[in-house]
Amino acid sequence: MSEIGIGIVGGGYMGKAHSVAMAAVGAVFETNLRPRLEMICASSETSAERYRRAFGFARATGDWRRLITDPAVEAVVIATPQALHCEIAEAAFALGKPVLCEKPMGATLAESETMVAAAESSGVINMVGFNYIRTPASQFARKLIAEGGIGTVTWFRGEHTEDFLADPETPVSWRTDGVANGTMGDLAPHMINAALALIGPVESLVASVETVHAQRPGGVVTNDDQAQIMCRFACGAMGQMHFSRVATGRKMGYAYEVHGTRGAIRFDQEDQNALWLYRAEGPEAERGFRKILTGPAHPDYLPFCQGPGHGTGYQDQIIIEARDFLLAIETGAPVWPTFRDGLAVNRIVHAALESARSRSWQDVPSDPRD
Amino acid sequence: MSEIGIGIVGGGYMGKAHSVAMAAVGAVFETNLRPRLEMICASSETSAERYRRAFGFARATGDWRRLITDPAVEAVVIATPQALHCEIAEAAFALGKPVLCEKPMGATLAESETMVAAAESSGVINMVGFNYIRTPASQFARKLIAEGGIGTVTWFRGEHTEDFLADPETPVSWRTDGVANGTMGDLAPHMINAALALIGPVESLVASVETVHAQRPGGVVTNDDQAQIMCRFACGAMGQMHFSRVATGRKMGYAYEVHGTRGAIRFDQEDQNALWLYRAEGPEAERGFRKILTGPAHPDYLPFCQGPGHGTGYQDQIIIEARDFLLAIETGAPVWPTFRDGLAVNRIVHAALESARSRSWQDVPSDPRD
Amino acid sequence: MSEIGIGIVGGGYMGKAHSVAMAAVGAVFETNLRPRLEMICASSETSAERYRRAFGFARATGDWRRLITDPAVEAVVIATPQALHCEIAEAAFALGKPVLCEKPMGATLAESETMVAAAESSGVINMVGFNYIRTPASQFARKLIAEGGIGTVTWFRGEHTEDFLADPETPVSWRTDGVANGTMGDLAPHMINAALALIGPVESLVASVETVHAQRPGGVVTNDDQAQIMCRFACGAMGQMHFSRVATGRKMGYAYEVHGTRGAIRFDQEDQNALWLYRAEGPEAERGFRKILTGPAHPDYLPFCQGPGHGTGYQDQIIIEARDFLLAIETGAPVWPTFRDGLAVNRIVHAALESARSRSWQDVPSDPRD
Amino acid sequence: MSEIGIGIVGGGYMGKAHSVAMAAVGAVFETNLRPRLEMICASSETSAERYRRAFGFARATGDWRRLITDPAVEAVVIATPQALHCEIAEAAFALGKPVLCEKPMGATLAESETMVAAAESSGVINMVGFNYIRTPASQFARKLIAEGGIGTVTWFRGEHTEDFLADPETPVSWRTDGVANGTMGDLAPHMINAALALIGPVESLVASVETVHAQRPGGVVTNDDQAQIMCRFACGAMGQMHFSRVATGRKMGYAYEVHGTRGAIRFDQEDQNALWLYRAEGPEAERGFRKILTGPAHPDYLPFCQGPGHGTGYQDQIIIEARDFLLAIETGAPVWPTFRDGLAVNRIVHAALESARSRSWQDVPSDPRD
Repeated sequence: MSEIGIGIVGGGYMGKAHSVAMAAVGAVFETNLRPRLEMICASSETSAERYRRAFGFARATGDWRRLITDPAVEAVVIATPQALHCEIAEAAFALGKPVLCEKPMGATLAESETMVAAAESSGVINMVGFNYIRTPASQFARKLIAEGGIGTVTWFRGEHTEDFLADPETPVSWRTDGVANGTMGDLAPHMINAALALIGPVESLVASVETVHAQRPGGVVTNDDQAQIMCRFACGAMGQMHFSRVATGRKMGYAYEVHGTRGAIRFDQEDQNALWLYRAEGPEAERGFRKILTGPAHPDYLPFCQGPGHGTGYQDQIIIEARDFLLAIETGAPVWPTFRDGLAVNRIVHAALESARSRSWQDVPSDPRD
Repeated sequence: MSEIGIGIVGGGYMGKAHSVAMAAVGAVFETNLRPRLEMICASSETSAERYRRAFGFARATGDWRRLITDPAVEAVVIATPQALHCEIAEAAFALGKPVLCEKPMGATLAESETMVAAAESSGVINMVGFNYIRTPASQFARKLIAEGGIGTVTWFRGEHTEDFLADPETPVSWRTDGVANGTMGDLAPHMINAALALIGPVESLVASVETVHAQRPGGVVTNDDQAQIMCRFACGAMGQMHFSRVATGRKMGYAYEVHGTRGAIRFDQEDQNALWLYRAEGPEAERGFRKILTGPAHPDYLPFCQGPGHGTGYQDQIIIEARDFLLAIETGAPVWPTFRDGLAVNRIVHAALESARSRSWQDVPSDPRD
Repeated sequence: MSEIGIGIVGGGYMGKAHSVAMAAVGAVFETNLRPRLEMICASSETSAERYRRAFGFARATGDWRRLITDPAVEAVVIATPQALHCEIAEAAFALGKPVLCEKPMGATLAESETMVAAAESSGVINMVGFNYIRTPASQFARKLIAEGGIGTVTWFRGEHTEDFLADPETPVSWRTDGVANGTMGDLAPHMINAALALIGPVESLVASVETVHAQRPGGVVTNDDQAQIMCRFACGAMGQMHFSRVATGRKMGYAYEVHGTRGAIRFDQEDQNALWLYRAEGPEAERGFRKILTGPAHPDYLPFCQGPGHGTGYQDQIIIEARDFLLAIETGAPVWPTFRDGLAVNRIVHAALESARSRSWQDVPSDPRD
Repeated sequence: MSEIGIGIVGGGYMGKAHSVAMAAVGAVFETNLRPRLEMICASSETSAERYRRAFGFARATGDWRRLITDPAVEAVVIATPQALHCEIAEAAFALGKPVLCEKPMGATLAESETMVAAAESSGVINMVGFNYIRTPASQFARKLIAEGGIGTVTWFRGEHTEDFLADPETPVSWRTDGVANGTMGDLAPHMINAALALIGPVESLVASVETVHAQRPGGVVTNDDQAQIMCRFACGAMGQMHFSRVATGRKMGYAYEVHGTRGAIRFDQEDQNALWLYRAEGPEAERGFRKILTGPAHPDYLPFCQGPGHGTGYQDQIIIEARDFLLAIETGAPVWPTFRDGLAVNRIVHAALESARSRSWQDVPSDPRD
């Protein structure tokens, strides 16, 4: 068992989540590598100091370069606004420091490509923070599908829908500015990553995007409120996706359903401790979707609780992610999703925006390594 | 209160449903016009005679022309295979007899157009049997949306999914032969009709269709197992639809969700006595989708039961449909969906098939009358 | 195939339900015995004539004795207020006419005993109208349990809860007067009958009953609003029951759950087309309650629809009941629940009221025939 | 902001949960008092050392007296087997150290009374670990009811059901030995505490308890597998409770429903992020139970996540509990549930066991302070 000094850049929503995760992960997973909350960085010295005290870091800084270059910072979590991801990651890789970067990776496809190149030439651990796919339920779904538990996949439907901008009186903010912060740029990557994880590469797609409320108090909205994709996967399955930040009533609509030739799966993050499974077997009169409650029999549940059905929550996903990051650093084995995996998501986002613009089907370029 | 002689062509799945409906509708709705089960027609004299005894008709015939021309048959229900719809309807209209025709109307778009022309030049009552939209829940959903109960509609998702052909070992049959009997031709119309009823005309769409199991015991499948549509409605809303007969686990997945600027609605025919409604009002801490159980407060429920939550079923939809048909005949007022309304559905099916073929967005021609 | 003249006494809630059932049952189940709606009786000639026209009977009367004695009335359905059940049934049995009597049987335990004696000495078909146990889902649940599908039963919880008197401003009516019309007298029998059908005889119980709103507009309430039972079944299982007409939010809360040593069952009439089944078998990670949608594989579903998940409703239960009544008349074989079965329910009601009065456990006398 | 040295006695199921909570609570709630994981105690030096490393404590011991007396241990969490609770708590109180003791308090009613006396004479903070009532949903339910949000409460139903001993082949263990470890002694307290929190004191009750599987591999079972209570609350409401460790299919069936004169509430810990609320208001056609997803608008949710519907889990309840314990220590204000509150739960357990023994209604003595 040894310590590792963690530096987190950003102290807001995700910065806090990663700080808590780093404080708890050792006790939960009994990791060999124990995080030491070394330094936190925020946009000013004042707010950084506030976060330091709040989350229990040793030191604080208003300058991310100081954090990256500090010798006691041995691994970096990037939880800043998206525009800074690329530069910070490059700096960390240049010093050979492992990076866990929040999704979506770069502000543009070009930036994401730059980040992948930097990560891969450095040879250090790199990981993108697609946390939702790490719930015990979704990990189990992925395993079930991969093992043929529902036969050959024929259909996928996914959505990431919330309603935080459903009210047209909500004023403009950073969220309503710039394509990278729009629904397609910011929400869609989570579900696209899930689609890739569950079903595999997307071969071609057609998409449309829309700004539902173009004017809001304080100004003009410059990015999209909702978007949809229709696609064909490389495995032959068909699929649909839908993304929205104006989906009235939806709070955490990260949901998918998968049809296979011998079964089906349904999941909704709003009820994250249940996975619905249908098996086309046994007497017809006894078939039905079963609601499986997560428990010690499912991936990464047991360290949180010995009792099934007792449930894990949002913060626990980040703890699982932290464990995976630490384990990768410890063992040197790459951890999914790497920056390259994140780039595959960005390529689909890019193709979808292009399809929406041109009103045409687009092929999605496959990873040259594949 | 007076009697009307009913002739039903077809004694199978829907022929029986309409027969039961005609036997029960008078007592349920206390209609002024009381159906007399005058004559039933099937593909042979023998089977017609069997249906006559089973369902309680006065007479039987193996020749649909005899039924249509019989003077005691005053109104006609067409529940034959689709290929015969057009010819039978034309014959009935020529004699000035009202027609309730099962969906989908014609075997081709041209046939559907012929049927509309015949119906409209005859001036008699004509109606297409889209029964699912007549549940108390869906009638109420339609009313709620029309009255602005969820604000301006921004998003629609609909599906009609079943799994009766999910097993690749199910042999070929009439269902697996001919585009009109495929998923897009046969299942999709129900949900497309619902989309039109709930959201209004579709302006443009892009679609794909697929035969998942091209070979089955006994031969080759010539039509589609699943299909999907992405569309823009004339009102500005975006939407997605999905249709499948290989949706493992889905038994009656006639389901939709509608997002509006001030609320949302969800419905699934597998739980047809519940409508889920979200209203963006009241304290944030008390908001949520409410599960409204149908009852006497909802359209056409009370005649079936005085108690809320006691539920209606499949057969009851057909009884409601029969009441609407009889009422239209009695009053002379057209009854939705008319043949022209059915044609609008067929136009979308046609555009979707064309889109799938050409891999391009298609505009949907609007009704010249609109 | 032959006809049977049906006389129905009562044209209100249940009178209508039975009338519709008799109009439809032949076409639905293709019964050998076909009901002829011969005569309906109501409390006045005027209302009887109104019901006759509404439901399609041949004749009407304001005097139930005329109905019973009319030679064309060959079988009788009693759907009057409870106070008349005994007298009418006795008259019918005296003439050897089969009787389907609405629940609960007699207004008192003594009356119920009288009715059983009359039925059994006459030797004709006698049946009590516990309709809810006849849904395809509950019939299947009963079969599953009987066949050991969930192992040995260890626990039963049942409720019959509605909220039609939850509002204290609802005025007094016949429902609020007399113990036989109270919750224990009127609602409880349905669920007690279910308990007996699913689990078997009750050996002992302790109960409490309560009038929540003793004063209502128009006067004083003389019976109970809610009641509860805790019991031991003869098979050894423990159990609880709860009955209420003031269960705010509950519309048709006829619900039960049954635990067995190898499985469990849950059912709620508000979602009557689903049965939830858990089996303690297969990998732990894949266990869960499965939601089985009723379909052709379940008892008495197919005649209503060939498609699973399409659903049956309240009225359909009454149609199934009518089929069972007709079949019993046709074959001469007794049909569950007979009057004697109904008496067993009344004995439990009686014991529960006595337990509530004396605040003590009560043994429930077993049927001397058992 | 200052530190406090925490000593935890016990490193198993609950010992780990409290350790993780103490590691995370500062960062989550930004508490003024920051826990320092000072010492952990287990039944041997070896296992204590293992827990120390695993959870990140500074020191370890196999002797709980050393932990209690260590000057750096300033507050104590008791997570040992129940038999030791009393002695350890007394020792801690004698030194004026605050105690958070796992439920149920003492192994007997007498022990619980001793513990209350020790706590109250010491005057230091004392708290019982009924964690489930601390979910955002249950905290909100409690607040809603207290504020009259569902009117006057008329009915309560609660259960705590799991199935960890449903399989008769599971061998005997500490769980199957001794009344304090039985269902009534060990599981029931959670839900009884919830009943008291939501509805108020229980006035009288009748109960039954049962050992379903008296023989198990390895020996004889000496305590109960399932139990039930029927009761009257001091506020006038009626109620039922059910507890089981053989409830096949139930994983975390901590569930309750509450009927009031103007609304109703339903909750099930298996879906801990949803609270179901019915309000008898607005148009009849729009009423229904709404599924409220917990979010920042609910108690103690926001520190875990800014997004509603993202969910909290089992471990988060323990973190909330830790915050409440620390806050009580910081402010000196007593924290519910105190040992005296825990004693009220034990009195009901005691009365229930007595009722089951004597087969009679039992009055529950009210707290002399009330």
